[in-house]
Amino acid sequence: MADTLAALRSLMSSYSPPLDALVVPSEDYHQSEYVSSRDKRREFVSGFTGSAGLALITMNEALLWTDGRYFLQAAQQLSDQWKLMRIGEDPAVDVWMADNLPNDAAIGIDPWCVSIDTAQRWECAFAKKQQKLIQTSTNLVDEVWKNRPPPQINPVDVHALEFAGRSATDKLNDLRERLTQEKARGIVITALDEVAWLYNVRGSDVSYCPVVHSFAIVTPTSAFLYVDQRKLSSEVSGYLKENGIEVREYDAVSADVSLLASNQLGPFAFKETQSDVSGGTEIGSKEDAAESIKTEAEDVDSIDLIWADPGSCCYALYSKLDSDKVLLKQSPLALAKALKNPIELDGLRKAHIRDGAAVVQYLVWLDKQMQENYGASGYFVEEETLAKKKQFREGKKLTEVTVSDKLESFRASKEHFKGLSFPTISSVGPNAAIIHYGPQPDTCAELDADCIYLFDSGAQYLDGTTDITRTVHFGRPSAHEKACYTAVLKGHIALGNARFPNGTNGHALDILARIPLWKDGLDYRHGTGHGIGSYLNVHEGPHLISFRPQARNVPIQASMTVTDEPGYYEDGNFGIRLENVLVVNEADTKFNFADKGYLSFEHITWAPYQSKLINLSLLTPEEIDWLNTYHSKCRDILSPYLDDAEMAWLKKATEPVRA
Amino acid sequence: MADTLAALRSLMSSYSPPLDALVVPSEDYHQSEYVSSRDKRREFVSGFTGSAGLALITMNEALLWTDGRYFLQAAQQLSDQWKLMRIGEDPAVDVWMADNLPNDAAIGIDPWCVSIDTAQRWECAFAKKQQKLIQTSTNLVDEVWKNRPPPQINPVDVHALEFAGRSATDKLNDLRERLTQEKARGIVITALDEVAWLYNVRGSDVSYCPVVHSFAIVTPTSAFLYVDQRKLSSEVSGYLKENGIEVREYDAVSADVSLLASNQLGPFAFKETQSDVSGGTEIGSKEDAAESIKTEAEDVDSIDLIWADPGSCCYALYSKLDSDKVLLKQSPLALAKALKNPIELDGLRKAHIRDGAAVVQYLVWLDKQMQENYGASGYFVEEETLAKKKQFREGKKLTEVTVSDKLESFRASKEHFKGLSFPTISSVGPNAAIIHYGPQPDTCAELDADCIYLFDSGAQYLDGTTDITRTVHFGRPSAHEKACYTAVLKGHIALGNARFPNGTNGHALDILARIPLWKDGLDYRHGTGHGIGSYLNVHEGPHLISFRPQARNVPIQASMTVTDEPGYYEDGNFGIRLENVLVVNEADTKFNFADKGYLSFEHITWAPYQSKLINLSLLTPEEIDWLNTYHSKCRDILSPYLDDAEMAWLKKATEPVRA
Repeated sequence: MADTLAALRSLMSSYSPPLDALVVPSEDYHQSEYVSSRDKRREFVSGFTGSAGLALITMNEALLWTDGRYFLQAAQQLSDQWKLMRIGEDPAVDVWMADNLPNDAAIGIDPWCVSIDTAQRWECAFAKKQQKLIQTSTNLVDEVWKNRPPPQINPVDVHALEFAGRSATDKLNDLRERLTQEKARGIVITALDEVAWLYNVRGSDVSYCPVVHSFAIVTPTSAFLYVDQRKLSSEVSGYLKENGIEVREYDAVSADVSLLASNQLGPFAFKETQSDVSGGTEIGSKEDAAESIKTEAEDVDSIDLIWADPGSCCYALYSKLDSDKVLLKQSPLALAKALKNPIELDGLRKAHIRDGAAVVQYLVWLDKQMQENYGASGYFVEEETLAKKKQFREGKKLTEVTVSDKLESFRASKEHFKGLSFPTISSVGPNAAIIHYGPQPDTCAELDADCIYLFDSGAQYLDGTTDITRTVHFGRPSAHEKACYTAVLKGHIALGNARFPNGTNGHALDILARIPLWKDGLDYRHGTGHGIGSYLNVHEGPHLISFRPQARNVPIQASMTVTDEPGYYEDGNFGIRLENVLVVNEADTKFNFADKGYLSFEHITWAPYQSKLINLSLLTPEEIDWLNTYHSKCRDILSPYLDDAEMAWLKKATEPVRA
Repeated sequence: MADTLAALRSLMSSYSPPLDALVVPSEDYHQSEYVSSRDKRREFVSGFTGSAGLALITMNEALLWTDGRYFLQAAQQLSDQWKLMRIGEDPAVDVWMADNLPNDAAIGIDPWCVSIDTAQRWECAFAKKQQKLIQTSTNLVDEVWKNRPPPQINPVDVHALEFAGRSATDKLNDLRERLTQEKARGIVITALDEVAWLYNVRGSDVSYCPVVHSFAIVTPTSAFLYVDQRKLSSEVSGYLKENGIEVREYDAVSADVSLLASNQLGPFAFKETQSDVSGGTEIGSKEDAAESIKTEAEDVDSIDLIWADPGSCCYALYSKLDSDKVLLKQSPLALAKALKNPIELDGLRKAHIRDGAAVVQYLVWLDKQMQENYGASGYFVEEETLAKKKQFREGKKLTEVTVSDKLESFRASKEHFKGLSFPTISSVGPNAAIIHYGPQPDTCAELDADCIYLFDSGAQYLDGTTDITRTVHFGRPSAHEKACYTAVLKGHIALGNARFPNGTNGHALDILARIPLWKDGLDYRHGTGHGIGSYLNVHEGPHLISFRPQARNVPIQASMTVTDEPGYYEDGNFGIRLENVLVVNEADTKFNFADKGYLSFEHITWAPYQSKLINLSLLTPEEIDWLNTYHSKCRDILSPYLDDAEMAWLKKATEPVRA
């Protein structure tokens, strides 16, 4: 690590102009939340493995900014060459740079790894001391990274219409309509899940996210996919051609954005064969679209903007555009992707049923293991763990990692399984209080019948992505643990049962999940819900249920998916979280005041809450009714996927409760 | 009215430069919500009597903008010379002016009647067509208003320390500390309630608001009150002197702000006598304050800003300041006034008890009248009204206005009563659906035993301002009316029972009162709560419980007051609203997650909810407990103020209910 910093500083001082500082963000060229191992530059330079953070290297300092989820982990992983900067406590990175770097400082960054928004905010902060953001021509980290993993040539798959619900051609038509509305003659698409969604392709270039390293450009008459062409089989190539999508090399995006800016972008190789392949109608329809633009009442010359999403598009591509002619606005694909079509919703419901069955099978297995090997009273009984039985465990040691592997194996046995949707959080006792805990085989904890066990996990199925959290106890939970579990459950139910008029955003709804916790002076330091993809990213915008200001930007709308996951975390003791995926539906309310239309949530996650952990005296009759109804549906819905023993366990787990 | 428009247009065209349009806002020189009759310029020119609206007169059009509360009333009151512009449906006034007035148009306004914020927003909208906002040197409306009411010389009273809780001297010390923190060498205070609060004076210049037409300027070493000096008795003059407050004529504020801008502001007459009157200590402490500013580590030259609240300070005074040296920020008195001191809180609690007793006495009286004169089954019994008894009413006709006069008489009999705090909303059946209904003696409705009756009213007492709404039915309410009443009550209880961490704003809390209504597709088109003064304005900021964005600006804080008033309104049928005043307290929560400190509400309004209107099967056990506890407290708290018959009625009205 010391060598790395020295090598980087040497490159920085020989750069022209010499760099006073180098910024190394976590993100790849697509502003991804999860990145491939080859793109983990910030982890390589700093040694910190968390998913979020930013490294800053000056000639005599090295600093790493990260958020509250990772303070402990970062402090452990950073060497003494590094200083940990706590987001929310220490100055923000742009403020720190402006205040601590000299006048006229040159601050280097790979412009492919930073969004337009971020770069512009920094430039603004730098202005007062005439500091400058230098877009480096190469990534300096890559130059010093000797064993950088090579690019992988993972095949691209077509995401079949039976799962996608809408063809790429239809999605392109919709997109082109939006372009016309916004007077845009092209859009640069950089977010990996947006490219995958638009073209109905999937891949495996990033762990947990079935995306392809790629860009797209769409104009009223053409559509380009920038990808390593070695990843494309002839079938996939044919599919793309059929949908009027021209394939270009990944690196060509840079030159092509310049051509787009000067209105000289292709078609290239594709143009001669296009009409042969895709038939008259389709091409005809595209020509019609172009024609309709020309004959609009609006002067065609006014349609001259290039659309780029300031939050996801990298500064490198933005710099190739004429800034006066850029439409800086959230990509229209963000909302289009979030509004699931009926086939996607059907798939998501089915995937969640299979996933729920896997979770129940896991609980049945784990309950048995805990009783047999750890002397636990088990999922249903509240008794002190038998001390003598603790000896048993020497034989069959269960750890956070080995049990989560077992959970994965139950999921892997299900139809359409393609992998996990994020690293499983499998956490015992105090580890459950670490919100983004990632157990490691060498260091993880052993299961413990006297502790709460929290697991937050999900999978990628061809027909949908899942995400569920349950918290269980196999011994005797304390009254305090039960009170906290019950408060979390009450918040989870309150949010899930909400009905609200169109136009309500996730910022307004967030409080519903917190009120039962606040009553006792409890709270949690994370949002309450995120969108989830259709065999795509497990975290999907543009909506959120959260106290963060971003949650105000997009109303919750019918056919969105969103999680409902309040929690409570007591440092050093335990953590509780309950998470289901919800689908937003139009509500069948008795009235419709102000003709706004009302919405409600449908739970599509199916797995029992542990009745033993509920203090039933704290539930209202309405909450008890809801719980019993949900549990009864769990039985009916999961029964086709469970054997007799599993079903007997589930029946017991879902027995109606009374106050 | 036609003459008025013609006369105004004549003045407009002879003005230099000639005016293409004249704006006539509702507000007085202090941006007041309620204004004196002499300041009702917009009402005079347009004939529209609502509390909110803006008139715009061009050479050939006359337009009036108002909001949804007043669409119906404005349509009725405006002559055909006027066009009604509906806020939220029609273009906003600045957009309309920019779009419809010619290039280079001159748009006149009396700069005393418009806030800095509004004027700057308009100037921005006008820029694209080089239109200009012309600050007229006189108010053109006043020039054509022949019978304009003369100024009244209402005496100023000192608000005694036993009610105010803190002396003007103490408040001035706090204010001067804030000035130093913000590097301000002066503040211009224009909001009438802020001047009254700061100097502990009260008056009767505006109906319902015990304020004095006045301005204030405060610097580290001086404090000025601008007021018609004929309003001051020698006692009041002496009191002001004692507190180091120099009195200047109301009109002198203009010249004095100019002097303040050039750092040449007084003391004037006051300076020779100041040390004689107020004794060494006090003047000494002010000199010390000035001294401490000079000896601060900060360079004294850096303390050169003049503070003006952009939302309340008029553009006329702002224009006299050097715009580079103005601190445009909410007045520090807004929050200081909202955070009630213990004596104010004690007074508010007591005032609300007397007020609650008056409301109960009114209900007892009204119940008897409705039974005797209208054949009603009464407050407690649900039966069809006896048709034959309806004849009785010819003798004793009760109208919305006559009953509200009776309500006022019950209040007037109470200690410390000074008048009403706003025009009583007394509304029968369909009128109750008009949120800001103001019954008029000639046109108001008669009471009706078959209809819901809603009354929203409050009073000014020396020890506090009150505001309460109850909705009742003296016959047989429909199941639908009961369901709606119950939903409103559930929202009212949910908000009042909330506990929440410090930092939570009223925008987040608002949803709690709506969720029970949303469940059935119901809602209401107004906010849920406003602050309330201590013998001051009934509507008091800076906090709000509302879905409006402003409600995000100020967290709800301990020792604030706020109303809890959800409703439901069905056009042409009925309206329901329930309103109590709450005090924000530190909550005694079991835990204190993240050391934020938690808050809760204390109801200080005491009057029963009508059990007959509640569908008890829709209440949770917790809600029923709350209701029974509240009702039981009503008995205990109000009993000293009620006679035996009234107490017997209240006992019946507050009998415990069961689901």
